Amino acid sequence: MTRTVIESATKTVVIGFDEPFCVIGERINPTGRKKLAAELEAGDFTTVEKDALEQVACGAMVLDINSGAVFSNKMAEDPRYADNNFVEPPLMRELCARVQALVDVPLCIDSSVPEALKAGLEAANGRPLLNSVTGEEERLEAILPLVKQYNVPVVAISNDDTGISEDPDVRFAVAKKIVERAADFGIPAHDIVVDPLVMPIGAMATAGRQVFELVRRLRDELGVNTTCGASNISFGLPNRHGVNAAFLPMAIGAGMTSAIMNPVRSVEMEAIRAANLLMNHDSNGGAWIGLAKVLESMKDGASFAEASRAAMEAGARTGGRRGGRRARG
Amino acid sequence: MTRTVIESATKTVVIGFDEPFCVIGERINPTGRKKLAAELEAGDFTTVEKDALEQVACGAMVLDINSGAVFSNKMAEDPRYADNNFVEPPLMRELCARVQALVDVPLCIDSSVPEALKAGLEAANGRPLLNSVTGEEERLEAILPLVKQYNVPVVAISNDDTGISEDPDVRFAVAKKIVERAADFGIPAHDIVVDPLVMPIGAMATAGRQVFELVRRLRDELGVNTTCGASNISFGLPNRHGVNAAFLPMAIGAGMTSAIMNPVRSVEMEAIRAANLLMNHDSNGGAWIGLAKVLESMKDGASFAEASRAAMEAGARTGGRRGGRRARG
Repeated sequence: MTRTVIESATKTVVIGFDEPFCVIGERINPTGRKKLAAELEAGDFTTVEKDALEQVACGAMVLDINSGAVFSNKMAEDPRYADNNFVEPPLMRELCARVQALVDVPLCIDSSVPEALKAGLEAANGRPLLNSVTGEEERLEAILPLVKQYNVPVVAISNDDTGISEDPDVRFAVAKKIVERAADFGIPAHDIVVDPLVMPIGAMATAGRQVFELVRRLRDELGVNTTCGASNISFGLPNRHGVNAAFLPMAIGAGMTSAIMNPVRSVEMEAIRAANLLMNHDSNGGAWIGLAKVLESMKDGASFAEASRAAMEAGARTGGRRGGRRARG
Repeated sequence: MTRTVIESATKTVVIGFDEPFCVIGERINPTGRKKLAAELEAGDFTTVEKDALEQVACGAMVLDINSGAVFSNKMAEDPRYADNNFVEPPLMRELCARVQALVDVPLCIDSSVPEALKAGLEAANGRPLLNSVTGEEERLEAILPLVKQYNVPVVAISNDDTGISEDPDVRFAVAKKIVERAADFGIPAHDIVVDPLVMPIGAMATAGRQVFELVRRLRDELGVNTTCGASNISFGLPNRHGVNAAFLPMAIGAGMTSAIMNPVRSVEMEAIRAANLLMNHDSNGGAWIGLAKVLESMKDGASFAEASRAAMEAGARTGGRRGGRRARG
């Protein structure tokens, strides 16, 4: 049985074929978020903290922490800031500390810079997920030793030195190569979470079927868990949430076990919770019934994050347990 | 390649593994619709005609016509009305005539009374779908000769004289028996559309997985198309549309090729159109883009049926083709 174990100081999350779908919150990522990048440059963590609380309230089971900020103003004053190796490691440490002070879910340490990954691995409590290794030679050599040294699971993205192939067989072969190389380092397949790469269906009409078939093969032939950047499937299309909300249940039905996504969107979270119920991964329908109440309470105009937060706090008052804010000692 | 061909006087609908999911509109059915039953008893077809037009505008590709009305008032005056064999055949003829005068989609002739099925087969233009045969001996003997005589496809429901089994292997065996018995009559497997029976997930937590596995087996081992009463999955649960909207894409991903359902519900139709897109059964995303416009126009307060109707009429004016009202000669 393939079980990828991720831990915070106090919580264990298992990604697996017989587990609820693992939602990894993607919001704490300055890439493409100018306002967030500017805040981080100014040492302001308000948005990060808000995003941490909101994502957990909405159902994120793991939070991705990406330190890929570009500090344009500081760069103009001090050329060292042009180097990600200078910017990211301390930022990653700070992000992990801030988030862990607020919420108790495990982290996913995300950077293109190996030194930032190392800083995150040191700063994170428990057993974080590392994001990511690819099939590129240089990346394999840089990341797999870290995975082994810190004994953590890792996201493996199925591109290599030739880029991202449009041929799903090539992407499968890249994933297989990563699993084999990891084995050479003594890293077991259950600690590899493969991202088979989701193409936009607007650019490639077979993109959906490719993913469903790849996920099944990755599970049956390599025995690995899988993840994806789910929203990529709908890039460029009208009514993207509607496409995502069908894609996620179909991917889950095919065997996908996690996604890196925005959990603050009710449409996608509703689709995932319904899929969990339909896969018999929601015992007694408790999570579905809880979500139905949250959606019902949104009819008064509350956002999904607000309604989820209120439900979580009400649950805490009545002794329920829905994750979230850590009790202060 | 399994292709189930259904025809009206002017339109052909193909149910198949490489076709868009076939939506069979369920609304024209007096069972459990007291108001409709009372109208039919009074010879009033207003609701039937409204339902026919609305369902086609919303995307029904086939219309189910169920004649199972109970005429309580007439029964009090004339005891012959207590007999469905007396009530249903003329009602079925009238329903078919009324619907065919308004819309040009193929029909699905639906009754528990063989004489009503026969009346429908005679009244329907083209090649209707017959609904239904089961694995019950008496039913097999009554229905399969009609299927052969009229050369029509038939819905095969996987229960038999022992009832509905909770064991999916038994339901598969019943379906196999029906396919084999049909072959004895010279009816090919591609003219059998199996309903594997969808149980409510609130009563049986494995109901979703059962269906997904059964659909795959029915397709791989028997080579048949499949259908279901989709909404049964969510019976008794809160936020039923949300469950249905994940169930349908997951069933489609598993290989389900049609459903008997209410097409006037936008949530379910959105899920189906997204699943068609993700299965590469919506060339250039035309149907998805069309639906996105309809959903957008609902923001002004129009119902899905109204917005769909307006889009259809706008399309007809500009020379587009979306089915619907037949041109009058």
